[in-house]
Amino acid sequence: MTQYNPVELILKKRNGNDLSPEEIGFFIRGYLEGSIAEYQMSALLMTIFFQGASGAEIASLTQTYIESGKSLKFPSDLPVADKHSTGGVGDKISLMLAPIAAACGLYVPMISGRGLGHTGGTLDKLEAIPGFKVQYSLQEFQTMVERYGIAMVGQSSELVPADKRIYALRDVTATVESPGLITASIMSKKIAEGAKDLVIDLKVGSGAFMPNLRRAKELAELLVHTGQSFGQRVSVVFSNMNSPLGKAVGNALEMVEAIEYLKGNTLPDTKQLTDALVQRMLISSGLASDETTAQAMIDTALSSGKALEIFRKMIEVQGGNPGVIEDYSLMGTAKHRIPILAESSGYVHQIDSRAIGYALVRVKAGRMKTTDSLDYAAGALLLPKIGSFLETGEPIGELFCNDIAEGKQVADLIRQAYGISPIEKASEPLIYEIMTG
Amino acid sequence: MTQYNPVELILKKRNGNDLSPEEIGFFIRGYLEGSIAEYQMSALLMTIFFQGASGAEIASLTQTYIESGKSLKFPSDLPVADKHSTGGVGDKISLMLAPIAAACGLYVPMISGRGLGHTGGTLDKLEAIPGFKVQYSLQEFQTMVERYGIAMVGQSSELVPADKRIYALRDVTATVESPGLITASIMSKKIAEGAKDLVIDLKVGSGAFMPNLRRAKELAELLVHTGQSFGQRVSVVFSNMNSPLGKAVGNALEMVEAIEYLKGNTLPDTKQLTDALVQRMLISSGLASDETTAQAMIDTALSSGKALEIFRKMIEVQGGNPGVIEDYSLMGTAKHRIPILAESSGYVHQIDSRAIGYALVRVKAGRMKTTDSLDYAAGALLLPKIGSFLETGEPIGELFCNDIAEGKQVADLIRQAYGISPIEKASEPLIYEIMTG
Repeated sequence: MTQYNPVELILKKRNGNDLSPEEIGFFIRGYLEGSIAEYQMSALLMTIFFQGASGAEIASLTQTYIESGKSLKFPSDLPVADKHSTGGVGDKISLMLAPIAAACGLYVPMISGRGLGHTGGTLDKLEAIPGFKVQYSLQEFQTMVERYGIAMVGQSSELVPADKRIYALRDVTATVESPGLITASIMSKKIAEGAKDLVIDLKVGSGAFMPNLRRAKELAELLVHTGQSFGQRVSVVFSNMNSPLGKAVGNALEMVEAIEYLKGNTLPDTKQLTDALVQRMLISSGLASDETTAQAMIDTALSSGKALEIFRKMIEVQGGNPGVIEDYSLMGTAKHRIPILAESSGYVHQIDSRAIGYALVRVKAGRMKTTDSLDYAAGALLLPKIGSFLETGEPIGELFCNDIAEGKQVADLIRQAYGISPIEKASEPLIYEIMTG
Repeated sequence: MTQYNPVELILKKRNGNDLSPEEIGFFIRGYLEGSIAEYQMSALLMTIFFQGASGAEIASLTQTYIESGKSLKFPSDLPVADKHSTGGVGDKISLMLAPIAAACGLYVPMISGRGLGHTGGTLDKLEAIPGFKVQYSLQEFQTMVERYGIAMVGQSSELVPADKRIYALRDVTATVESPGLITASIMSKKIAEGAKDLVIDLKVGSGAFMPNLRRAKELAELLVHTGQSFGQRVSVVFSNMNSPLGKAVGNALEMVEAIEYLKGNTLPDTKQLTDALVQRMLISSGLASDETTAQAMIDTALSSGKALEIFRKMIEVQGGNPGVIEDYSLMGTAKHRIPILAESSGYVHQIDSRAIGYALVRVKAGRMKTTDSLDYAAGALLLPKIGSFLETGEPIGELFCNDIAEGKQVADLIRQAYGISPIEKASEPLIYEIMTG
């Protein structure tokens, strides 16, 4: 293997030159093996933050990440598809999308994460179900997907360990928000898990990582292009993150909302987004020829009860108690329910989703550190969206908690997160645009 | 002490905001104490490389560096002055300048460094003198300066230890070439050593750190401004580094050239530069009112033999054998002298000083790693400057070495470092400009 001087590689990138695939491979592997120091890796990461990364560099990073671990290899005729969301408040779409997609004939190897800070995580929501397990070997994961069409698990240390280590370093060196590094991080996992079709829910707006559509499109181009260079078909749905999704925010509450959805009791915004995402998966994989056909398949998956049955089977297979589908109280019940009422009448102009997420951490619906414990029953049901009209005293929603003192303060903080003004405000579109690779 | 989150400080700077003196102090002290990781320090250094540092930030960095160790405090009426050079090939100016300045009544606490890569270091040249010692406590150093007007020593670990540690980290993370970090590094040492007046020999050109005068002036502004904010008067002489200085390159050879200079046998370029630098020190400190008076003082310092006597006394005080002043062979003699001859006739258009410096490392006139040993007798005498005319077969100079096989190759490399063309080429000015704070 060619030897390089790590300082000269940082210098090369710092001075605006692209690194070759060999140079990127050398640096990342050297870091993982310990021959390149953490302070050199962080210097290179900050250099990439400032200088950006070319398409070829991102592909090399992605390749090196993938090669740092094992990959899933599904039979070539199996329509394996997945979704990735860049994260939001109340985003429980995966819980409905995966069983619906599987009911339509797709195989969904879903690797999810935990909540941190103001955003929730799918794994935490699943663990609100008593007994539900999320840690499996790659082989067990692949077997479950092939047999049941669906499995929802945590990231195995066998899969792209490079990303895990580098992400942890980015987190403590202020180098997270780099489109090139984000692309390699997302795509390496989605390629290594064997998805042939991928739809990305790219959140745009005040509560999201991407502040505007222009910046979101730049990132989307990188994601689509990187997927393509590995033979993966990638679509991107640009969705509005100015209002929390659905009603529930909090682990058990979101699980209840997801099960209700699979029973046919859908809400307008989560239905619109879930439909759009599954449509892209079905069309991209060739299971549907157009939106109309795809939507008919989705409608049947729900109305036939097949999506719900697949979800029930998954709970059973992954060690959870499927009784939760009939009896939500098995996930625990909050002792206190505190109404959150509007203090003035008017239109909702803005919703500080980030503040809502952080407030709910105080009743343990979320966590600030990975080691914090959760109260699955804690959370909130929130009704208004941007553009909604509220009378004085009308409920904004309800807070569920076991700690009444904290709960009262959290209810106040949530109320303050709604910017209400008598000036009329139109509602906002949920989906801005769809990009197909 | 206020506690900050190091990630948020990196983020703040990364997003283009200035850090406060408290924030900079917290970060640097945290790094020195071990509560802030090396990978966070290197991320901040790279951020400063890309975002630059404001005058206030540089002053805070300098202050924190100084406070990390002890400082020299000379009596307030003592005219303490020093020179700093940004480094070049054949730059032995300090060896003449310090005793001349001391002979004119200045007190010169000179802290020097060792050679690395293509540039030499004053400490190595001094150590060509048998017995000469360069490591002293700060107290011993101060006593020598007060008693003899001059001392030339290595950096004590008591003085600005923060700079030493951070410089080592910059060296391995490609963050050396940042004007803000360079300024804090230079100025913290020159302020902590107690110099009230400082002249900086800022090298410009192909062989120097600063590629052009515009960039050099930007750095000079930072140096002058930072000195002023600590009550130090700083002048900057912008000098041409396209030709090696004087004739000798190599430790003992340069020492011989310096002693010859102090005996009155000066060379035009080293004389012009030494005169200009000492003039600035004398005028800045108030010992001379103008250039003419200053030059008269300098001429007397040499013609009276006083500068040479001060140099002799310094050698004695610092444990060296003053006999070298009369008998250069005490510093060792190279076994082989290889003539370096021009292969074609013409004008010297360019001299690759960097290549000369690196070539001489091969005969141990310099070192690539700090642990490499030196051959003090090795080096070269080089005659032509840019604009010189050479006939075919006329000597470019002579190589001195103890390893004949390496020596022949080095002589070839040095010859190739001279770009000779029949087209006429004018000589270049040695001093471009002088900036006074």
